[in-house]
Order: sequence, then C-alpha cells, then structure tokens
Amino acid sequence: MTTDLRAQALAALAEQTIELPSWAFGNAGTRFKVFSTPGVPRDPFEKISDAAQVHRHTGAAPRVSLHIPWDLVDDFGKLAQHATDEGVSIGAINSNLFQADEYKLGSLTHADPAVRAKAVAHHVQCIDVMRATGSTDLKIWLPDGTNYPGQDDITDRQERLAESLQQIYAELDPEHRLILEYKFYEPYFYTMDIPDWGTSLLHCLALGDQAKVVLDTGHHAPNTNIEFIVAQLLRVGRLGAFDFNSRFYGDDDLIVGAADPFQLFRIMNEIVRADALRPDSGVNFMLDQCHNIEPKIPGQIRSVMNVQEATAKALLVDREALRAAQRSGDVLGANGALMDAYNTDVRPLLAELRESKGLPADPYRAYAASGHAEKAAAERVGGQQASWGA
Amino acid sequence: MTTDLRAQALAALAEQTIELPSWAFGNAGTRFKVFSTPGVPRDPFEKISDAAQVHRHTGAAPRVSLHIPWDLVDDFGKLAQHATDEGVSIGAINSNLFQADEYKLGSLTHADPAVRAKAVAHHVQCIDVMRATGSTDLKIWLPDGTNYPGQDDITDRQERLAESLQQIYAELDPEHRLILEYKFYEPYFYTMDIPDWGTSLLHCLALGDQAKVVLDTGHHAPNTNIEFIVAQLLRVGRLGAFDFNSRFYGDDDLIVGAADPFQLFRIMNEIVRADALRPDSGVNFMLDQCHNIEPKIPGQIRSVMNVQEATAKALLVDREALRAAQRSGDVLGANGALMDAYNTDVRPLLAELRESKGLPADPYRAYAASGHAEKAAAERVGGQQASWGA
Amino acid sequence: MTTDLRAQALAALAEQTIELPSWAFGNAGTRFKVFSTPGVPRDPFEKISDAAQVHRHTGAAPRVSLHIPWDLVDDFGKLAQHATDEGVSIGAINSNLFQADEYKLGSLTHADPAVRAKAVAHHVQCIDVMRATGSTDLKIWLPDGTNYPGQDDITDRQERLAESLQQIYAELDPEHRLILEYKFYEPYFYTMDIPDWGTSLLHCLALGDQAKVVLDTGHHAPNTNIEFIVAQLLRVGRLGAFDFNSRFYGDDDLIVGAADPFQLFRIMNEIVRADALRPDSGVNFMLDQCHNIEPKIPGQIRSVMNVQEATAKALLVDREALRAAQRSGDVLGANGALMDAYNTDVRPLLAELRESKGLPADPYRAYAASGHAEKAAAERVGGQQASWGA
Amino acid sequence: MTTDLRAQALAALAEQTIELPSWAFGNAGTRFKVFSTPGVPRDPFEKISDAAQVHRHTGAAPRVSLHIPWDLVDDFGKLAQHATDEGVSIGAINSNLFQADEYKLGSLTHADPAVRAKAVAHHVQCIDVMRATGSTDLKIWLPDGTNYPGQDDITDRQERLAESLQQIYAELDPEHRLILEYKFYEPYFYTMDIPDWGTSLLHCLALGDQAKVVLDTGHHAPNTNIEFIVAQLLRVGRLGAFDFNSRFYGDDDLIVGAADPFQLFRIMNEIVRADALRPDSGVNFMLDQCHNIEPKIPGQIRSVMNVQEATAKALLVDREALRAAQRSGDVLGANGALMDAYNTDVRPLLAELRESKGLPADPYRAYAASGHAEKAAAERVGGQQASWGA
Repeated sequence: MTTDLRAQALAALAEQTIELPSWAFGNAGTRFKVFSTPGVPRDPFEKISDAAQVHRHTGAAPRVSLHIPWDLVDDFGKLAQHATDEGVSIGAINSNLFQADEYKLGSLTHADPAVRAKAVAHHVQCIDVMRATGSTDLKIWLPDGTNYPGQDDITDRQERLAESLQQIYAELDPEHRLILEYKFYEPYFYTMDIPDWGTSLLHCLALGDQAKVVLDTGHHAPNTNIEFIVAQLLRVGRLGAFDFNSRFYGDDDLIVGAADPFQLFRIMNEIVRADALRPDSGVNFMLDQCHNIEPKIPGQIRSVMNVQEATAKALLVDREALRAAQRSGDVLGANGALMDAYNTDVRPLLAELRESKGLPADPYRAYAASGHAEKAAAERVGGQQASWGA
Repeated sequence: MTTDLRAQALAALAEQTIELPSWAFGNAGTRFKVFSTPGVPRDPFEKISDAAQVHRHTGAAPRVSLHIPWDLVDDFGKLAQHATDEGVSIGAINSNLFQADEYKLGSLTHADPAVRAKAVAHHVQCIDVMRATGSTDLKIWLPDGTNYPGQDDITDRQERLAESLQQIYAELDPEHRLILEYKFYEPYFYTMDIPDWGTSLLHCLALGDQAKVVLDTGHHAPNTNIEFIVAQLLRVGRLGAFDFNSRFYGDDDLIVGAADPFQLFRIMNEIVRADALRPDSGVNFMLDQCHNIEPKIPGQIRSVMNVQEATAKALLVDREALRAAQRSGDVLGANGALMDAYNTDVRPLLAELRESKGLPADPYRAYAASGHAEKAAAERVGGQQASWGA
Repeated sequence: MTTDLRAQALAALAEQTIELPSWAFGNAGTRFKVFSTPGVPRDPFEKISDAAQVHRHTGAAPRVSLHIPWDLVDDFGKLAQHATDEGVSIGAINSNLFQADEYKLGSLTHADPAVRAKAVAHHVQCIDVMRATGSTDLKIWLPDGTNYPGQDDITDRQERLAESLQQIYAELDPEHRLILEYKFYEPYFYTMDIPDWGTSLLHCLALGDQAKVVLDTGHHAPNTNIEFIVAQLLRVGRLGAFDFNSRFYGDDDLIVGAADPFQLFRIMNEIVRADALRPDSGVNFMLDQCHNIEPKIPGQIRSVMNVQEATAKALLVDREALRAAQRSGDVLGANGALMDAYNTDVRPLLAELRESKGLPADPYRAYAASGHAEKAAAERVGGQQASWGA
Repeated sequence: MTTDLRAQALAALAEQTIELPSWAFGNAGTRFKVFSTPGVPRDPFEKISDAAQVHRHTGAAPRVSLHIPWDLVDDFGKLAQHATDEGVSIGAINSNLFQADEYKLGSLTHADPAVRAKAVAHHVQCIDVMRATGSTDLKIWLPDGTNYPGQDDITDRQERLAESLQQIYAELDPEHRLILEYKFYEPYFYTMDIPDWGTSLLHCLALGDQAKVVLDTGHHAPNTNIEFIVAQLLRVGRLGAFDFNSRFYGDDDLIVGAADPFQLFRIMNEIVRADALRPDSGVNFMLDQCHNIEPKIPGQIRSVMNVQEATAKALLVDREALRAAQRSGDVLGANGALMDAYNTDVRPLLAELRESKGLPADPYRAYAASGHAEKAAAERVGGQQASWGA
C-alpha cells in the first residue's frame, strides 16, 4: 500500500463511528429458546453502561440506539445524562410494532383504523423521546405482513401504510429523519408489507426528503447482491442507515462479518467509493444483532472491529489502479486491484490507529482483561434480565 | 376419472390416517412474539381433547404425538385412557433437546460427556413414556448446531452424535422405532449437526433397521425437490415419517399445502406410486405446524383436509396412461397425465367419502358450527395456556 | 360459483389475449446442448405461421413478439402482411444486446461510448421495425452485468445506462412504449445492471410516462413473492408487461404454470383484483419460454391454456366473501375464499368458452390431431432451423 | 504465526497439487453467447500446452483432466507423451453424457435400453483412454434429469442408473476409481437424477470401494454449508475429488475463491483438519470453471493461487488453540482462532515458497510478462477454437 493511501485510511478510520443497539446487551434467542447469561443488564441504564464498555475499548462506538418501549424510562433526560457520563450519546430511536396483541394482523397497515391510530401514536411518543434525548433518527422497522395468500389485500395494506407513514412524518421536527427499514420475511411468511428496498424507497419518495431507507444486511433474499443496493440507494440520495449483522440462511443476526467478510468489504467499498464514510454523509452505520450464545459485550466489540477491518481494506483499494483496469476492460486486473486490498492484513494498521488514540491495540483482549464481565455478573443479581421481550 | 380409479381412491382414502401434534393446539409464534388465543389448552389432557375434535370432524386423525417434557403428566396411563375416551390414541413421542440451559452448545453432540449423558437419559425417559402409552415411535429432532465457523469441530460432533444415538437405540424395545429428523438451519445458523437427509440416513444405517428418517417438509434448502428425497428414501426403505407443514421462505411451519399445494400433491404422488399410503407401509404421516395467528383446531382441520385432497388427486393419477407416456418419451403427455389429476376438483369425492362414514361433508364448517371454540374459550379461564415453552 | 361470477368470468376470458414470442418456435437449450426437433421453422415467416397455429386452436394468442436481429427480414411490411394473412399481428419488438462480440463487457452500460452508441443505434433500428410493423412496444431486456467484484464500477454503469436509455426514449413516437425488463442473474454472475424491479422502476421514472416495467416471472431471487411486485407496480401505474414462464431453480424458462400453478393463480388474482385484465389496461401478457425438450407448438398451446386456467380461477374468486373475511380478520376464512376458487376445476368452463367461439374444446388435442406437426416435419427440410443464435 | 506452523505450512504447500481441466482453456459461455478470444487452443495438444503454462508459473498444477469426446485424438500415447514433454501428465478422464441427440431424455437413466447401452459403451471407451494415458480416475457427471413433473418416473430412473453404473464399474481395473459427481440443477430443471451428495453416496456405496463422490463447489442449493459435506464425506471415506469453482447464484463456474474466499478457506480447513491434503489422501483437487469473459490461462493461474492461499491460511490455523477454545465452550475464542488464520496475509509466504522452488514469486505477473498470450494469438490462426461443444 502506498504511503498516501495509508495516511488517508488512518484519517478516515479515525473519524468512523458505529452505533450500538441497546438490545444487543440483553438476552436474545430463537423461537425455540432464549438462553440467559450472568451479568446481563436489567434496565436501560445498565445497557448503556455496557455499550459504553464497547466504546471505551474501541473508541469507535459513541452512540447507542434505544428501542421503545423496551428502553422506556420515566426520565429520559436522566438517561441521556447517564449516557454522557459514560462517554456516549443516544442515537436512533426504534419503535416497536410487533409486541402488542392488537398488532397480530398488522400495525400501520391494520384494517382497523383504531389499531393504526395506536401505532401512529406510538411513533409520536418515540418522537418525544427523540426530543428528550437529542436523537434525530426515528427508525421504523415494519414487521407487518400476512401468513396466508388472501389473508388480506396487498394493495389496501400499502395504501394504509402510506397514510400512516404520512401521519408520522408530519410529526417530525425539521432536523429529524424517518428511516424506514425493509425485510424479506419474518415474522410473517406469505408477504411482508415492506419486503424490499424498492418498496421502502417508494414510500420514502412519497414522504419527502427527511425519509431515508435503512438497509439491514440480513433482510434480503438468498444470493442478493447487497452492495448493488447500497450503490443504488447512494446514487439516489436515500441511504439513511445500515443495520449491520450477518447471516448464512435467513435473518440470522450473527456478528457482522462473521458469515461473509468479503461481502462486508464489498459493501464498505461502495461506501468509500461514494465518499459516504464521512460523518456528515447522512449514512448512520448501526449494528443490529443477536448474541444468542456468545457474551454480549465481546460480541459487540468483535462486530465493531469487523466493520473497522472491512472499512480499512476498502480504504486501501488503489482506486487509480482500479479505475484504470476497469476503463481498459481488464477484468482480472480490476478484480485483482480490489482483491489486493481485501487480502491485506489490516490488523496492524488498526492497532496503530488505536494506540495513537490512547486505546488498547486489541480491544477484545483488553475488555477480557478488564474484569467488567466478572464484575457485572457479581453485581447484577436479582431483577429481570433484559431481553427482546422486555 | 375412470370408475375403477375412483373406487380405489375412495378405498385408499378411507384407510388414510394423519397424526396430529399435541403442541399445535397450544400457542406458537416467532422469536418476536407469541400471540395468545382464548380457549387454548392448559394441559396435555385439554390438548388431546382438542385433537380429538379434529378427528371427530374429519375421521382421519386418530393419533396424537406427544412432546416431552411439554406433555409430562404424573400418570401416562391416565392420559392414554383419556385419549381412548376421546376416540384417539397416543402416537409418536417427541423428545426435546433445545430448552435446557445445558444444551446451549449442543445436547447429543455436546463436548461435555455429562451433557450428552443427560440428553441420552432424557430419551430413556421418553422410551418409558412410549411403554406407558403404547407408542412405538421415538422421534428425535436434533436441534444441535453451531453459529460460528470454528465454534466446534464438525467431525467430532458427528462422532459424539453417533455414539449418543447408539446408546439411545440400545434402549429400544423390538417393536420400537427411532425416527430421526433433519433440518437445514435454525436454531443454529452456521451449521446444524443433522442438516440434510444424507446425514440422517447415514446415522440410521449405522444404527440398524429400527432407525428411519423423518422428512419435515419445511426443513430444506430453497428450491429443493422434496419428492425426489421421498422417492429415494422409499427406495432404500428408510422413510419413517413425515412432519407436514408448508413454507414460503425458511421453516415457516404454515398449514401444509397452504404455500405450495402442487408440491404436496407431487409428494403424495410418490407415496402412492410406491404403494406407501397403506397403513402398514411404515410411513407415519404427521403434522408439525405453528398456528401463530389462526385458530388452532380449524388450522389442524384445514391441514388434514389439505393432505386428504392432495392424496385424493395422487390416487386419481391414471398410472397406465402416465407410464405409457413416460415410456414413449412423450414429455408433455406424461406431464399432462399428472396434471389432469391435479386439476381435478376432489372436494366432492371427499365429501362423499365423509358422508359414507357418517362424518360431516365439510369438517371445517361443521367444527365452526359445533360451538366447541366458544365453549373452550368460556370454560378455559385461568391457568397457563400451553405454548412451545411449556 | 354463482351465476354472476361465472358470466363475468366468461366475458373477461373471452377478451383475454396472450402474446407469443417468435423465438419459442425455434430450438432452445442450455449452455450444454441445444437439441433440434424436426419441423422447426427456418425463418420469421415460418415462425409466424407456427404462432398462428397456437392462435387458431386457442383463439387467445393473436400477437407475436419479434426479436431483432433474429427476425430481421428485408421487408417488414411483407412480414406484417403474412401475419395478417395467418390471422395474427406483430406485437412487441425485442432488442438484442447479448450477442455482438463488442458487448462482452456491456452494451448500454459499456465503458466505451462507441459501444454504447452501437447499442443505442440498434434500438433506433428496432423502433423503425415498430413503425414498419405497427408494433407499439419496444422491449428491452438488458443482459449487461459483471462477473467479478471490482470488474467495473456499479454506479458508473448506472449513469451510463440512464444516459443510453434517455437517448433511446427520445426516439420513441408518442404512441410507443419502452418496456424495461429486470433480471436477477445470468448471463452475468456477480451483478446484473438491472437486477430487480426497483432498479427498473427507477429508470422508468427518470425516463417518463412511456416507460414501464416488464416482469419476467423467472427473473427473481429464490422465494420472492412475485404477486407483491405485481401489486406494487400496478399501484404506481408502471406494470407494462409480463414475460410468463416458470421455474424451479434459476431462470428455467419452463412452461408457465408448470412449476407452481398456485403462484400463477396468485399473480392473476392481483391482476383481476386491480382490474388490469382489461385489454386497455396497459399490461401486455406475453410468454417467454424455452421448449428445450418438448415440441414447441404444443408447448405454447399448453402455456396459453395454463394462463387461461389461472385467470379463470382468479375471476371466480368471490371478492365480496374475500373482502368480508379480510375486513373481519378471519385469516382462515379469507384464505379459504381464495382457495375455493383455486380448487375449482375450470377446464369445463374454458371448454364451454372455446366452443362458444367455434374453437375446439381442447386445443392441445385438436392441434395434435391437425397433422400440422407431421406436415411441417415433412416439408421443412433443408435450411437452418431457427434457434436462439439465429 | 509460530515458527512450527509456518514450517509445516510450507512443507504441506510444497506438496500440494491442483488438477486443471483441459476445457478451461477453450471458449466457454452461457446459453446466450460464447465469446471467443484470440489465441484459444484448437486441439487437445494446444490445450495441454496451455495447461502446462499454468504449471510452469505456479509449480502446483502438474495434471490435466481430459474430456471425451472433446479431447479425442487418434493416438493417446502421443498426447500423453506431449504432456510429459510439456512437464505435465494426464489426470482424470471425464465422460460426456449431454451432447448426443439420443440423450435428450436421459443417458444412463434413459427408458430405452439401447440408449443406456450407448452411454455405458462410452464409458468403456473412456476406460480405454485411461489405460492409454495412465489415468486412474473415471469422472462421471450425470447431466440426466427431467424438466416437468411426471415426465418420467423418479424411482425407475434411479434403478436404471444403478444398473448402468454397475456395468461401468465392472469394467474398471483394480487401480481405477469411478468418481461420481452430483449437481443440484441444470441442464434439467424439475429434478436431476443425482442432485445431492446423499444420492451420489448411495450409488457409490452400492458400487464398492472404488467408487467415490465428487464435490463440485457450485452444485448445491443456495446457502448450503459445503464444508459440512466435505467433513461428512471424509468421515465415511468417500470424498474422491473436488471440482473447484465459485458462484454467487446458480452454477456460475467463476474462478474458485472469487465469490466467497472465506468459504474456500473453510473447505480447506476441513481438508487440513482431516489430514486430507496429503498427496496420497485419495482426494483429487481439480478445477472446473468457465472463463467466459476473462483470459483463460491467467484465469487458471489466479484460480491455482486462490486455492493455495486458502490452503495456506488453513494450514496456519493454530489447532491447539482452536481445540482448547472449542473444548471450553469459548464460542468467540474458537471462532477467533479460525479468523486469525483467515485474516493473515499469506501472499508473502507463498512468494517465499515459490522462490524456494525456483518459481516466480507472482505467477500471474510472470505469465503476463512471458509473451505466451501474444505468441499464441499470433500463431493460432485458422482452425476451430476449442469450446464446450467441440
């Protein structure tokens, strides 16, 4: 790698931030079983403290997404202050449309206007949390869908959804964004109401400039080329955020980069190519994962490191050589220019970056040595461990 | 359809039985939410009573599979008697290897011999239940697997599994069968320890003649030709049972025939072709489904009807015409012979069959009119509704 | 079925038309082998004659799509007259961007402006053919893509594509449409340049009202809910046409309805629901198939019949009952309303329709008895049989 | 990496060999187009010369698979001598069951005994080529299958296949192996007759010890865990060979390691774990790819390098650390032990290995500088370039 590329990479990596989900620190699982782990947080304050551990050791994770109602507290000012005290801040506010009994057949798309009104009102509440915490992103993952052909009318549901979203959008402050996620399937199995980027984008275009698409890396059909979607959404100015995780099969929610590190690199390559790594690019890089069997904080640290490594490799692509090969139709040469960067071991570069910031060279080992896990397990006795359902 | 085909079909349909899973009558859901429904059973006795409703209206569902420990009772003789009183009997006994905390990293495959011993002992308990209830099928679905490459050694786990299965197999009585299910993914996401029919079959071959493969129609990779597997397992004499359900994406566990009725017909066509519909063929036709949003008993009734309709169509295939077209290389003619049967409306034939047995022509409507749902909702107040977790 | 539904269905079916592709009458195959068949046409005139056989026996296939340059003739007026003489007319004009050596690395997206200019000029030629034949649809399937990550820049290719399409669009007459197809993969394997409906739609929106999306039923990721896309494109007024065929795996191009007849029914159900079956709805129902091993004309006849049967079933859905069940949240009732129509044997209804028009009740058998196949095989000796490459 | 691991890796890499397919040096393509390239070989002698270029620069590809009839020559002794002169030898002999007109509906599975006899006789011819060239592997990829449900009887085809294979197997010399490949789909689309490893294994078990399974990395359902199959086949002693290539979608036949380098590493990790990299392990590591748009010899060189890099990484796994983490249930630690090796840049190690053998450190660049491509393009004028069809 040239000296210039190296220096530029270090500078860009120094600015890169990744947002952590509060729920990653609680227990998670499959429909078959949620295993519990000693030391898991029992309330939003403890979740933020755990998230702060990740930031403390990586220096790259200064924000925490909240999930309402899981992270409801009486005094959000106090929670935001707690975050500040821990060295982090509140990120996106996530609404929840999948746990109320009324939502069995839909929320923002439900045939009953009263149910839709309840779901819209929930977002007004979330926007209040945004105001109370300084958050600017309202993230909506719509879990609505149907299980059986004919169960409900696909088009009617789209129309109800458009209307509900419009009502929510109207409540936003000027500095707020509504970021809208799509998902291929689950929790419904015949069709989701926002199954793909095209549907999410159509709704965003109808809403206005403050609406952007969220790309969750696990929410696609098998074999989908995700970096193509990244490039396309960047091209039309509507990529609002990532929910990073990885998968071998369905929406496995494994540690980002664990299943296909080359795909993560290709995604970050499109980000770097479009100059969208910049903090002011409008793309929020978030994690959304389930640590079903591994410890949560180390799982999040490994995730942050994986994103950093993929980013570092993308930053090391010799773009002049790449462009030259592409322009001349040198298929293997162009592919080789990309692979040269991918095949580079960037761990020393990132270690150097961390040490230059006064951080441990290896955050994973540093956390393990910190004693926090043992301390949490010893102290957090009693109460109800946080999990998806609470 | 010729008179002969019709008569033969009626005779075969009159003998066909489908086994119901006790857990289908409890609540089910996704990792996001389990919705509850009024009137859902609170114990194994009520589950069997509900299963008996399905048999009462269809005449085709005389057995109920139990799941241990969900269906543990103090006195299995009493439960079996309750079944008899309700007009049904106990079918396969299903073990549970996915809900003990020790099984987080595996059960029959776990690196720790103590955990494996516990999992083996659970099956000894299940075999005792078989003896107490007259059941002859021990059904093992192995949920074991790993989430991350390297997490454990694939081959070591196979060896441990082989040894654990051998220990269980050694406990069987001569009239018992061990039926072994495979699953492509979930609850683990890097690899399952029995992910495909080939792996299940290898273990069955190693165990002996009392071991057979269970084919769950939702447990395959996308696009897999399931009827090919059915034909192959029948050819080598190792198809022990079906777990019927349907899917659009992953293991959706929808009502059998709901997602792809033509596939169900093609499966039943291989069954009929191999003369494996006969009650003594050794193939146990079972349902395994989740009624997440629809009422349970009607969902099971619809499922039984769907299997009956697919079977009726398969029985109506004019096999002489089919063979003649196949032998002469008449691609469209052979396909047409199959499709002629599929395109037939067999509902009148099944109505006729039911009425000849003194059953309602339309079991779905008859159940709706029976008042059982309203009665159960009114009476089953208090207690804990059964669900996957209990 | 009620009398009214039946009468409405007959009226709608009487108006339904399906467009045939000229290339379906030539030889086709896989990359491994193209098998030849006696009697296959050797020029566009014979292809149209064969297509006319399909219309003669079904009464439902009055148009033939042409493919340029495969169907280039010196005098398109003469070809159009030949079509008229045979009782059919010329439908969509399909361009070809995948067989010139220059297109190895792209056509409308190629890095070299000269190659793009050639590809644009080819469409100007196609538009001339439209004028000469009275065709109004210019169909573009863009086969462009890349095989290796890094091979070319995804975004640059989108920009070049947008510019090329704009140049083509500018050439259209006011009554012309540009209909733009997407494809998930093949002939390129890392990414296609129009891989999904979202990308096709974005380009259509940028072009203007005369640009519409073509949905080929074989061009999606595994498990994709196609009828959702149909509903979405109808909702935004951009569904221009179907390319009908069916698949079990990739883009198998099998006879429509052969792999998943229930899916075809669900697609037609969305069409009927949106009142888009009307001849003036702007949706062109076209076939695009490969008859690799079966005879071509019977393959096309079977395809037309399959679309008719799916349509008939969709027309028989009791929409009042369906809506009532949907509105009341009766999941199984709503699904049941749909399935009642699907389970109906509509072959007698279609036989009645055909006989009322003076057509044979069974077009497949009538064609077989017509002697055309034997006549063509005897007369079409010498010359070069048409196939994909010529 | 420790000194020991490094030394062991170098020693193992020095012995590793990869077999090249003669057909990779001819033109290849999709059903849409086969693009031609200047300098492509016109006969088997030129193919072997080109393959020898790969060995000359990598030192790791000393064998060439032949494909009959594509590589039929009058005097196989002369061809073998030519190979020797070029520094390589003849590897596996591949039969061809997909290009005779009689095979349209099947070859070894055909309903007509005369067609089956022809297909069997072709293998007798291939075994003669083995004797003439010193080859010991008869590789059978069975392309047979059906396109439409009902087209032929699945079980009958299995029985015919078993019988045909038995006839071929009976012709083998004691030192010969029959290696049997499976494929999920293509060139047939309803079902293949050997679609999965289970079916291939069942036939091999029935044949005897000289029959082994060939695993083509592109021949699986989406999301299939291939390394699990590798481990399983090694466990039962039936992994005979690999056909290496890579894919994003179907059977894309791209350069091995190009689509998912991490998967290739995981596969090689199972090989190393089972000590099956040894030259006498019975596993033949072969390439089977299509260089549709890239130059052939560089494509093969890149492929060999990719396999070497994946192998090197697998050899660098600290197996003691891995085992320790696995045994203690340290999920992230065990995964981390694997990833440490994967994240290592092994290119310097391989450069060192090559230079120690007197080979160029970078075979790809060395070949580009050799002038061979230009020379071949200049000299190979006239004649018919080799491709799949000839």
